[in-house]
Amino acid sequence: MMYVTRREHFSAAHRLYNPVWDHAKNEAVFGKCNNPAGHGHNYYVEVTVAGEIDPETGYVVDLKELKHIIIEHVIRKVDHRNLNTDVDFLAGVIPTAENIAHGIWMQLVDRIPQGRLHQIRLYETEKNFVDYRGEA
Amino acid sequence: MMYVTRREHFSAAHRLYNPVWDHAKNEAVFGKCNNPAGHGHNYYVEVTVAGEIDPETGYVVDLKELKHIIIEHVIRKVDHRNLNTDVDFLAGVIPTAENIAHGIWMQLVDRIPQGRLHQIRLYETEKNFVDYRGEA
Amino acid sequence: MMYVTRREHFSAAHRLYNPVWDHAKNEAVFGKCNNPAGHGHNYYVEVTVAGEIDPETGYVVDLKELKHIIIEHVIRKVDHRNLNTDVDFLAGVIPTAENIAHGIWMQLVDRIPQGRLHQIRLYETEKNFVDYRGEA
Amino acid sequence: MMYVTRREHFSAAHRLYNPVWDHAKNEAVFGKCNNPAGHGHNYYVEVTVAGEIDPETGYVVDLKELKHIIIEHVIRKVDHRNLNTDVDFLAGVIPTAENIAHGIWMQLVDRIPQGRLHQIRLYETEKNFVDYRGEA
Amino acid sequence: MMYVTRREHFSAAHRLYNPVWDHAKNEAVFGKCNNPAGHGHNYYVEVTVAGEIDPETGYVVDLKELKHIIIEHVIRKVDHRNLNTDVDFLAGVIPTAENIAHGIWMQLVDRIPQGRLHQIRLYETEKNFVDYRGEA
Amino acid sequence: MMYVTRREHFSAAHRLYNPVWDHAKNEAVFGKCNNPAGHGHNYYVEVTVAGEIDPETGYVVDLKELKHIIIEHVIRKVDHRNLNTDVDFLAGVIPTAENIAHGIWMQLVDRIPQGRLHQIRLYETEKNFVDYRGEA
Repeated sequence: MMYVTRREHFSAAHRLYNPVWDHAKNEAVFGKCNNPAGHGHNYYVEVTVAGEIDPETGYVVDLKELKHIIIEHVIRKVDHRNLNTDVDFLAGVIPTAENIAHGIWMQLVDRIPQGRLHQIRLYETEKNFVDYRGEA
Repeated sequence: MMYVTRREHFSAAHRLYNPVWDHAKNEAVFGKCNNPAGHGHNYYVEVTVAGEIDPETGYVVDLKELKHIIIEHVIRKVDHRNLNTDVDFLAGVIPTAENIAHGIWMQLVDRIPQGRLHQIRLYETEKNFVDYRGEA
Repeated sequence: MMYVTRREHFSAAHRLYNPVWDHAKNEAVFGKCNNPAGHGHNYYVEVTVAGEIDPETGYVVDLKELKHIIIEHVIRKVDHRNLNTDVDFLAGVIPTAENIAHGIWMQLVDRIPQGRLHQIRLYETEKNFVDYRGEA
Repeated sequence: MMYVTRREHFSAAHRLYNPVWDHAKNEAVFGKCNNPAGHGHNYYVEVTVAGEIDPETGYVVDLKELKHIIIEHVIRKVDHRNLNTDVDFLAGVIPTAENIAHGIWMQLVDRIPQGRLHQIRLYETEKNFVDYRGEA
Repeated sequence: MMYVTRREHFSAAHRLYNPVWDHAKNEAVFGKCNNPAGHGHNYYVEVTVAGEIDPETGYVVDLKELKHIIIEHVIRKVDHRNLNTDVDFLAGVIPTAENIAHGIWMQLVDRIPQGRLHQIRLYETEKNFVDYRGEA
Repeated sequence: MMYVTRREHFSAAHRLYNPVWDHAKNEAVFGKCNNPAGHGHNYYVEVTVAGEIDPETGYVVDLKELKHIIIEHVIRKVDHRNLNTDVDFLAGVIPTAENIAHGIWMQLVDRIPQGRLHQIRLYETEKNFVDYRGEA
């Protein structure tokens, strides 16, 4: 069993607020992340696939192929976008790092060509990041 | 002559477009940076002060003091903000890295407590950055 | 289950030696880390909390709150300090990366406001780091 | 149980191709990685050892000692080498990141002086890395 | 005057030796860099253009356009290549970081669409890099 | 003219205070940097040499040779040391980043084997660094 990771990048805007709450509660919970005109980040996503080495290629999964799948199903949808309004797979959720990572997992889990999806790590900044492994 | 640099960070949203142009021209020039709902970045700003070492302190400038000036006059105004709508010192300019760096220079050039402002470096991403030294 | 990490920084001095050993044995075991006047590092600590996403906030834990807890109970006590002499939660242990990580775990394990503490990663340098997950 | 990691670096050339395949199939599978005159990388290897803290030293394993073992049994053999032709422990395998990580594991697993080898992480680039933990 | 930088990446193999010298002299001068089967690196190139901000765009130079020029005239020729044998603009020179940086300058100096080429910085490793500004 | 840089690392302790001042003034000026038992950093020093490319080697200066000079005359004296008490070339100065960079310049300026010393950059942390170019 080997774990293979591909790292990709996107830049996006977002705003954290819960539309069922009033402004005061959103301010109390989300603080400056609730700025009405939004803010943004350079996000880095690391996609890890687990599997056995194919003896004919030396690969667990062809990272060129994995890269194209990540770009098609994730990066193309979120790069230079507003995560509150522009992304189908984030509709209806607050675009925290946790929910973005979960959304990316759902986009990729059934599209891994060899091995199986093991983890999504999403860096929102150098200081804040989350990991999701599909665990209940 | 010694050059002393302090690095600070902010996260912000922006959109690149020229309001005197129509949509088609903005798309042609700015491409995905013209996304109407915006996108964003983790910016890093490096502020460099030039001066002589004070023999009593060993400092060119007290970096604790410089840090507070950068936070008060730059970071507090841009962090978790939308650079198109929320920042007084960027009003009326397209918030490219070039114009942001120039705006930060103007915010700081008359507020350096010892030595003189030498350079603003602004990283928009790991791959794109600009330097401004106040040269005509 | 989601894993959320916050990274913080501190700068500290330390010296590695066992006071029950003589100088020759300390030199043999700890080498240049036993320099009597000490040396120091820029440490980075990554605190990981595991838990479920709160659907009202999209958070596992509020990272602003977690940041304040780390600063109050760890960073404030170790930043710009000597780890051999100045830190209550390291009294009586040799301040290796292993023991510092264990001490940070003990400072934080009962103070996590949502979810549970999953891991402390401590970087002593870019080349040396340790992970502790509270395992016996 | 504590996990202690040492990071080391080497620079090497390699070419990805399967000698039992013809040129067209190698091109189809490996693309630009199949360039006949080779290409190369700055590799970073992170060696993680798991064990208990020795109360006399505060160490799981002496990282100075671990460093020397990594240099002697890995770095000395791969640094400034061609991984297809110059490395005994990679003879007969395609030098993908997966196979290199497996080879490094085999070089080190029986040479850890305290604790036990837990993981080899190998970075081929900032965007591609693999982890191996000896799992079947 | 503003300085705008774009960073790109390539991976390549090389070997340092002077074909007019015998093996012993090449070994004495170039050491392990003279390994006959070569070694390699992940190179990072930073291309800096100097110019004035265009008030209509806020740009010194369109970085999307600069990126395509760098990829077309540099990266496409060196990425996943052997710098001794595969690169037209390095023919006949020893592919040291200095000569590669000079070659990249010559590839780009007449192709900058706005402003003028100011500097090529080339990182061979994290520890070794060179700058060239076209100075005699 | 080409600029060639070598980066090296050391870990050291220091304390900032002026012995001719009383405790209150040292606290007012240096704050937490005046902690009596000291603190410390992982320092990175970048040594830049300017010169012309030697056509026989493709080098401005042999970086292997430059590395050994930096290690012999700088790193060996400061690594795992206390900069207030253990370093001959810092005797009598407050070990700020500015004074350390100046001291390193003085150690190296007459020992560069080819070309001439152009700049010392010293990183005290990721956020604080200084440059010295020998300018009056």
